[in-house]
Amino acid sequence: MGEKLIGAVEAGGTKFILALARSSGDILARTRVPTTVPAVTFAAMREFFDQATGAHGPIASFGIASFGPIDIDPASSAYGTFTTTPKPGWSGARFHDALAGFGAPITVDTDVNGAALGEWHSGAGQGCGTLAYTTIGTGIGTGLVRDGRSLMGFSHYESGHIRPPRDLARDPYPGKCPFHADCLEGLASGPAIADRWGASLDQVDNREDAVELIGSYIAHLAAALVLLHMPDRLIFGGGVMHAPGLIASVRRQCERQLAGYIVDPRLDDGLERYIVAPGLGDDAGITGAIELGRQALGE
Amino acid sequence: MGEKLIGAVEAGGTKFILALARSSGDILARTRVPTTVPAVTFAAMREFFDQATGAHGPIASFGIASFGPIDIDPASSAYGTFTTTPKPGWSGARFHDALAGFGAPITVDTDVNGAALGEWHSGAGQGCGTLAYTTIGTGIGTGLVRDGRSLMGFSHYESGHIRPPRDLARDPYPGKCPFHADCLEGLASGPAIADRWGASLDQVDNREDAVELIGSYIAHLAAALVLLHMPDRLIFGGGVMHAPGLIASVRRQCERQLAGYIVDPRLDDGLERYIVAPGLGDDAGITGAIELGRQALGE
Repeated sequence: MGEKLIGAVEAGGTKFILALARSSGDILARTRVPTTVPAVTFAAMREFFDQATGAHGPIASFGIASFGPIDIDPASSAYGTFTTTPKPGWSGARFHDALAGFGAPITVDTDVNGAALGEWHSGAGQGCGTLAYTTIGTGIGTGLVRDGRSLMGFSHYESGHIRPPRDLARDPYPGKCPFHADCLEGLASGPAIADRWGASLDQVDNREDAVELIGSYIAHLAAALVLLHMPDRLIFGGGVMHAPGLIASVRRQCERQLAGYIVDPRLDDGLERYIVAPGLGDDAGITGAIELGRQALGE
Repeated sequence: MGEKLIGAVEAGGTKFILALARSSGDILARTRVPTTVPAVTFAAMREFFDQATGAHGPIASFGIASFGPIDIDPASSAYGTFTTTPKPGWSGARFHDALAGFGAPITVDTDVNGAALGEWHSGAGQGCGTLAYTTIGTGIGTGLVRDGRSLMGFSHYESGHIRPPRDLARDPYPGKCPFHADCLEGLASGPAIADRWGASLDQVDNREDAVELIGSYIAHLAAALVLLHMPDRLIFGGGVMHAPGLIASVRRQCERQLAGYIVDPRLDDGLERYIVAPGLGDDAGITGAIELGRQALGE
């Protein structure tokens, strides 16, 4: 074969998914370990890659799609380091330190950029020039890919902290974000929904109204993404998006908010082909991590 | 000398600024013509470049920073064509048709991308990796440059049509945008200010309150740009920004809205070095157009 091997990590707030893959994408070994503290989780990660290396050969590069905030600027001296995360013990932890022993190049990006990259490469974003992947779950965040490379400024984006217009008569809930109260994450994340209604969105009383309300906030984010990035397609994933009727509500309300201002065939048919569900389901993150590993190879 | 000559056009809704420049940026000839209808304005543009060419030599490339909406995708068959502009006669007009006789490559971008590029090259955005330039004037729009190239998705951005949160008790004005009523352009553009108060922002009664209100909307746009692009700096220009106290109000309210969530030295000192006025004043557009011409040369 001679094909190079990639160590791929999807680092989430509750679990790490680890895989050894060929650069073609075939996964040779795979496991998951709980996210506790770096000393424990990083050790388990190293052990998996040690064993996988013993069985399959040396790792040529690592690709990591991680929760954050984390430094994803390859030019930064702190590249790969968790910054101000509230998760106990993780601020200052660095993937490059944990994996230095393997002597392989490491590419680190955010979980949502990784998912965007995975969906762009082999999921619902194939063929897009610019693709936005948003997760509506425990948190809210958006990753953007253009021509196969994730986008960033001096840091990764933080779309979940945009404040949407509100109608307090309709939704008096004050919001749950410790920084902004009623930003998108404070109003429409899973924890905000549970806090407001004591149930998940698919089990709340008066479900149609609740879906329409949460849909209005997500539609605002969708419209902001259109106006500030003009993606070829928007993917919305994450646990909250499983609520029946939600994606249709987002399409309908986003179209209403844009009000015909953006004229483009991509947006025809009620945004049916423009705002879509993920194609890879739970595999978007690890697929993106493998792709990041491929980019670390310079391939 | 042997330096190549660039034909530069800053195409605005009321006037075209035309220049013949060396690729070093030195301007050899310059004029302005009113924006009426394409047959007249394009003819005057051609005549200027004909005369300039006669006096100084052939044009090696054109750089155009234009009002829109306009197709700025170099891969599109309609590149350089005005699309759905409400300006009578301009939909379908194309710079490449108007300038074909010169046989030189043409780069077309938006007015705000041109201004961003000019400020990045030789104004208040020098040294930035990612730079956002926003104009608050007759319209509201933002151009973004990363490493000297303007950013776009399937089309140019439309930041002016984001809808900010509102307090209707404080500002009952319904908004002036024909598409969205109370989007940013509908609330905070020069025409919206004139319509709401019958005066420009520096001459309105109760000026401090008015500046704070308009500043709150612009601060929302600034925060959205931070959260969705993480620029190294935000420049705010355009006629409305001349109102005394406005930029300080935008800094103060943007900082309050971000609420300490983005921790970075760029944002220290009350955003004093982060949200700034243009460095080139009225010359940003034509400077950017010259830079676009340089890019058309492949230099």
